[in-house]
Amino acid sequence: MVDDSDNAALRDLRAALPDEVLLTDPDSTGRFSHDEAEWAPYGKPLAVVRARGTDDVVAAVRVCAEHRVPVVPRGAGTGLSGGANAVDGCVLISLEGMNEILEINPREQLAVVQPGVVNDDLRAACREHGAWYPPDPASSPWSTIGGNVSTNAGGVCCVKYGVTRDYVLGLEAVVGDGEVVRLGRRTAKGVAGYDLCGLFVGSEGTLGIVTEVTVKLLPGLRAPERTVVGYFDSLVAAGEAVAAVAASGVVPSALELLDQHCLRAVDDWKNMGLSAEANVLLLGRSDTPGQAGEQEVDTLVRCFDEAGATWSARSTDEQEADALFSARRLAYPALERLGPLLTEDVCVPRALVPDMLARIEAAAQRHDTQIANIAHAGDGNLHPLIITPPGDDDARLRAQRAFDDIVADAIELGGTVTGEHGVGLLKRKGLHAELSPKVIGMHHDIKNALDPTGIFNPGKVFGDPS
Amino acid sequence: MVDDSDNAALRDLRAALPDEVLLTDPDSTGRFSHDEAEWAPYGKPLAVVRARGTDDVVAAVRVCAEHRVPVVPRGAGTGLSGGANAVDGCVLISLEGMNEILEINPREQLAVVQPGVVNDDLRAACREHGAWYPPDPASSPWSTIGGNVSTNAGGVCCVKYGVTRDYVLGLEAVVGDGEVVRLGRRTAKGVAGYDLCGLFVGSEGTLGIVTEVTVKLLPGLRAPERTVVGYFDSLVAAGEAVAAVAASGVVPSALELLDQHCLRAVDDWKNMGLSAEANVLLLGRSDTPGQAGEQEVDTLVRCFDEAGATWSARSTDEQEADALFSARRLAYPALERLGPLLTEDVCVPRALVPDMLARIEAAAQRHDTQIANIAHAGDGNLHPLIITPPGDDDARLRAQRAFDDIVADAIELGGTVTGEHGVGLLKRKGLHAELSPKVIGMHHDIKNALDPTGIFNPGKVFGDPS
Repeated sequence: MVDDSDNAALRDLRAALPDEVLLTDPDSTGRFSHDEAEWAPYGKPLAVVRARGTDDVVAAVRVCAEHRVPVVPRGAGTGLSGGANAVDGCVLISLEGMNEILEINPREQLAVVQPGVVNDDLRAACREHGAWYPPDPASSPWSTIGGNVSTNAGGVCCVKYGVTRDYVLGLEAVVGDGEVVRLGRRTAKGVAGYDLCGLFVGSEGTLGIVTEVTVKLLPGLRAPERTVVGYFDSLVAAGEAVAAVAASGVVPSALELLDQHCLRAVDDWKNMGLSAEANVLLLGRSDTPGQAGEQEVDTLVRCFDEAGATWSARSTDEQEADALFSARRLAYPALERLGPLLTEDVCVPRALVPDMLARIEAAAQRHDTQIANIAHAGDGNLHPLIITPPGDDDARLRAQRAFDDIVADAIELGGTVTGEHGVGLLKRKGLHAELSPKVIGMHHDIKNALDPTGIFNPGKVFGDPS
Repeated sequence: MVDDSDNAALRDLRAALPDEVLLTDPDSTGRFSHDEAEWAPYGKPLAVVRARGTDDVVAAVRVCAEHRVPVVPRGAGTGLSGGANAVDGCVLISLEGMNEILEINPREQLAVVQPGVVNDDLRAACREHGAWYPPDPASSPWSTIGGNVSTNAGGVCCVKYGVTRDYVLGLEAVVGDGEVVRLGRRTAKGVAGYDLCGLFVGSEGTLGIVTEVTVKLLPGLRAPERTVVGYFDSLVAAGEAVAAVAASGVVPSALELLDQHCLRAVDDWKNMGLSAEANVLLLGRSDTPGQAGEQEVDTLVRCFDEAGATWSARSTDEQEADALFSARRLAYPALERLGPLLTEDVCVPRALVPDMLARIEAAAQRHDTQIANIAHAGDGNLHPLIITPPGDDDARLRAQRAFDDIVADAIELGGTVTGEHGVGLLKRKGLHAELSPKVIGMHHDIKNALDPTGIFNPGKVFGDPS
């Protein structure tokens, strides 16, 4: 327990917010102090504000601005880059409790939600209204729309339907010294001024706290999907299949890759018998209706075969297909059971997926480290997961070297250090390698302009990584 | 001719750029001084730079930054808000000559172009590579990609396929004192830092000069469209049909409205015989293949009929359908023949299109002025065009009052002052009514942060409108 008498900010927070909203006991604040990026450092918060509404956020930000106390927002804490990690002495603002769906409007193709609404909950509610919110990060059963907006989250269907930013029409945010602003719009189109709404999406809490989100919906229920399964002997062969799909002009509604490490980890946990079948599993889907969809499926099978699939087929069993996709979703938690994961999120041009996969294998060998691969392969977004035995410091050093090499390789191939997870703390060095000093400077200029007291999630994203 | 000896900036420009690039004679600079917003004021430029490449832009911006001379970029000058209009003493940078298509890459679904490439030229070149660049502003035969990016231009198919920003992956820009930066990416996804690329799209030249654009393409050729034609007695009835389409869940690939003023103007010019048939024409299209597309067409016809169409039918004659869409494209120039047009660009929620059309008719009556309506009705984007007889000052005053009323009505209905044309000079007052003072302040903060010398298109968009 922090002693109030020593801390004017805490005294003012207590005056502004009721006890049930403000947590200061380290036993209760601890679980809010970090996200799921196991390698990212985190500090000790001064307090946690469990906001019930925008007013609580305003009250907290006012106090923090006055006392120059860092403010770190967080949703469900499922991030993988340390973006929501506590800075020493900060006030963490948890938005989990602000979880109301305020409006679902199929006619205007939009929904208005509080930031703490869980992604799957929004998607389920939209279905009941005959509408679809596409962005589907693997964390969708737990992650919140606010967190998705903060990181501009991607997901499985994004290869065809785009990422979170493509679905954010407008938002409410608490900025500056605690002013509430509305950015963006409710109309289908609008060009009134700078795209400040889009600027806030993916800004990882460094510009203010998002307290309401207006998302775009697609009308109608999602069309049923056909699934194509491919088994491959090698990562590179599976990568060739991905490049072939890109060259074919088919845009699948999913194209996911799981390597032997993932398959084995899922088997060890859930006993699905996947690893006996394949070294590398590629899962393609098409949701295009009618004959056109049939042709897409045929093309996917052909691309898989021509790239050297040891087996490939259209799945005729919907349950089996769904089980394979839940294996995809389970791969990350299954691997987490083996030891701390250092998670990459590089994204490269589609044609260079085989090349990048070969480089990842080479990095694993070179640094004598185990790297599992999950990938949204269809958009070139690879998640090499570097696994270290718990407590092995030398393995951690080797893992870090492999991580850095993979980032350098991705940039060399014209790719990016982060396709969908965000920079947070883990990828700051990569960001500085990817962007020119002038562009990093533009980030600081915008940050200083919109957050003159420097309280919003300081040090994250483009902060000094050294 | 400006006298060099009096002007240090001009002297330095002459030293930095060859004669064929730098125009200073008012006879030759005049045609560059304004866009097609007939009501927007424009000043006298110091010079025009006809840039041949990024280096010319850098050279010009360096001189301008040093001497604090305003820089105004322009493409083809087809803008409708005065965004490209000369500020007194400015250097206009014309990017028309930078019209090379640098890369069309169907596999990575992208193209790289110089800003002066004409929209239709890019679309034609993509077709040859079996790919599609969707954004199709009515100005597509003349307007440039750079101008489209600056205004975040919309178009006819945007109701289904989105606007320019949705297709800009990356860009090169000259910023600050003449530094060249690359923003955005070439990969399918990427969240490395702030979305500075998206911030530049629609910023109307106020943050820097865009010198290269990487756009996203859709794979394959565009599917053939089916056309549904509806005739209506009244604007409001046509608006009801638009609202019914939105409620039906069908997303048409076009839904365009032309009123009697437009039809008559096109007839007077091109003798197409449209105005004898209908008071208001609604044109819907579906490009969904197969049976699903047939159903969409049936739904459109039903929506038209239930809203009270005097006649409606699926067009069985492709040539006839194309002729109707070229009437849509000709409407603006046809109306321009009648007198100076004051062009609105309001966008309202889809369900409120009938309400907004009724308010536009009321404004026309109230202010005794003639208002023609063209609309991208499917996304609620209406273009009331206020026509004034040349030289009638009182009519101009009444037109301005009608313009202001329509803007106020759109904002009252939860809409925006500009759906796709940009703010430029004409809609600055509307912008200040639409956005809160704090949000306007954030615009100034960002502008000051990224353009500390204040040279880039000063006074436009959020400048003081009084």
